Amino acid sequence: MRHSTRSEVDPFIVMDVMQAAAAAEAAGQHIIHMEVGQPGTGAPRDAVEALTAAMGQGALGYTVALGLPALRERIARMYGEWYNVDLDPGRVVITPGSSGGFILAFTALFDTGDRVGIGAPGYPSYRQILKALALQPVDLPTAPENRFQPVPADFAGMDLAGLMVASPANPTGTMLDREAMGALIGACAENGASFISDEIYHGIEYEKKAVTALELTDESYVINSFSKYFSMTGWRVGWMVVPEDHVRTVERIAQNMFICAPHASQIAALAAMDCEDELQANMDVYRANRQLMIDGLADAGFASFAPPDGAFYVYADVSDLTDDSRAFAAEILQKARVAVTPGLDFDPVRGGGTIRFSYARSTADIVEGLRRLKAFLQDR
Amino acid sequence: MRHSTRSEVDPFIVMDVMQAAAAAEAAGQHIIHMEVGQPGTGAPRDAVEALTAAMGQGALGYTVALGLPALRERIARMYGEWYNVDLDPGRVVITPGSSGGFILAFTALFDTGDRVGIGAPGYPSYRQILKALALQPVDLPTAPENRFQPVPADFAGMDLAGLMVASPANPTGTMLDREAMGALIGACAENGASFISDEIYHGIEYEKKAVTALELTDESYVINSFSKYFSMTGWRVGWMVVPEDHVRTVERIAQNMFICAPHASQIAALAAMDCEDELQANMDVYRANRQLMIDGLADAGFASFAPPDGAFYVYADVSDLTDDSRAFAAEILQKARVAVTPGLDFDPVRGGGTIRFSYARSTADIVEGLRRLKAFLQDR
Repeated sequence: MRHSTRSEVDPFIVMDVMQAAAAAEAAGQHIIHMEVGQPGTGAPRDAVEALTAAMGQGALGYTVALGLPALRERIARMYGEWYNVDLDPGRVVITPGSSGGFILAFTALFDTGDRVGIGAPGYPSYRQILKALALQPVDLPTAPENRFQPVPADFAGMDLAGLMVASPANPTGTMLDREAMGALIGACAENGASFISDEIYHGIEYEKKAVTALELTDESYVINSFSKYFSMTGWRVGWMVVPEDHVRTVERIAQNMFICAPHASQIAALAAMDCEDELQANMDVYRANRQLMIDGLADAGFASFAPPDGAFYVYADVSDLTDDSRAFAAEILQKARVAVTPGLDFDPVRGGGTIRFSYARSTADIVEGLRRLKAFLQDR
Repeated sequence: MRHSTRSEVDPFIVMDVMQAAAAAEAAGQHIIHMEVGQPGTGAPRDAVEALTAAMGQGALGYTVALGLPALRERIARMYGEWYNVDLDPGRVVITPGSSGGFILAFTALFDTGDRVGIGAPGYPSYRQILKALALQPVDLPTAPENRFQPVPADFAGMDLAGLMVASPANPTGTMLDREAMGALIGACAENGASFISDEIYHGIEYEKKAVTALELTDESYVINSFSKYFSMTGWRVGWMVVPEDHVRTVERIAQNMFICAPHASQIAALAAMDCEDELQANMDVYRANRQLMIDGLADAGFASFAPPDGAFYVYADVSDLTDDSRAFAAEILQKARVAVTPGLDFDPVRGGGTIRFSYARSTADIVEGLRRLKAFLQDR
């Protein structure tokens, strides 16, 4: 059987690191994991309890494709609480993770060969999902002075059918403020490009609240998830907010492609939204870890990075140390026993000189990881 | 924002029935549900207990993209137990439901515009997912004398890139025997078409065991799910078996498009595979319901159907009563207070004269539904 052309998506380069780390651990070594893009914590306790209770009460069959009405309403209410945005729950679509949101958005908006702009560096799966759907990802190299976020000049005259942004971003943790996002939305509207805002790291912010595209326009797709702030990665549940006249289209695609998001996860997610104390305790850990990283990486000799506005990553320029981040990550793993992600996963062109450090795990791990990284560079 | 062309997928016609049924119930009427394609039972009790225990023990983060190794191994073992097939667990991919399997299979195998044959009548989402991926579904009208399954003559010279079959089939419940499936596999191999076998209703069989494509060839994609026999629809977990040299391709697509199937569902699914007593008790209900349907539908006046080999549907020819199954289903709902699925969902061309009855719910519901259907035709 032949493989399709569209299936030729790139592997994650970090997989090499993860496999080498697993092999090292199997051989008895202790590895600090700064490569992992997920919280070390699980779903909030009340979310687990709500699901346990629901499982005792009846079959968790299919939900309707758009998701449990109570969850859609609770999410709409959250937009009032977090952003003072009055959102119709009818525009909220529950998805199988933000991954499901990307598939639905790209399918609803784009046709074969359409060009979709994505910032580089950026989440690698944007590019791969677009390719798998026979769409054309267009890397927009972003500038350090724009804090690695695209600006309208980056795609002027490029004939894009859409633009995908993330704020806070992965891997940089930088955010688009109201003005910067407004400029992108305006440029897209002028050029007939659909605007998609990935807001998966909302809630994990340090200096100020992230801006949702919904504060500025109803004419965008907004994608979010319970994976990060709500600490529910493996549950595969997220949501998407779409323009009112796109709901029926997205519903039909979702019915056919997914039937529904996992019912159990939807129940847990609904309860998780009222677990503010536990989630803020997680935030206290990220906040402490972030400060340790800012101070410790500089002290260790990884001095070139923008302090993250949100998320739980530091994206460091290591071009003074290497032009091959893949080999450098392998060296860090081998010598420092710290797993990190090569920048090439996020920026195939310029990522040879960058590394992403995640600080999503425990503070003790961060302290030990920074100690090892400092010793590594001193001995190098 | 404009909609894409590929997003113009058809709605499920049965949705009209379901909305009318919900409205009738909200108005205090009692409706018998013979439209629903899912068990009335929930996940097996031990599956729920296994998940409850796991949730108390740690975070359910992402699993690897191919799924929990223990689940892949248990599924491979099942092929030995059920079919006497020796299967390498490395070829088993855990998917977010069979829906996820369809997306992965179509993406791994086909390029834009490729023609993929599907039997008509058939599961409507095959057609819609293919369209959403910019592939070209090719309806193969099947013949009653072939028990509504495709035969090689149905697609001779049609230049198909792939053929999708289902056995037991939805909506007919008919199966492909070893010889019939072998003929299809041979014809596909001769014509360079990829063979995909949807085996989601395996385990729900009445006269004899269903044949898996893996008994006949390693060169096929086999898609299955925990939704039907294992009674876990809302959990969105299934699996796919692929040729050994396709595993890496499918893994990369799955990493990017789904990250992983829901972790909680994978844990529950693993435990469900050892709940044979409870699952066989469900089968006893389906078996009793099936006999009631065969006798009762004929007695009521819906006499033209093939007794189902498997699944939990009867697909009846009602062309002596109507040529508009949509209107007929609405009439049945209104007058008999029984919800059924119009054949047009499964066969856009010939389905005006057919209706699908599901007998997945309780036996008491089946008895009452048949009583109402008989009275309805008598009064008509």
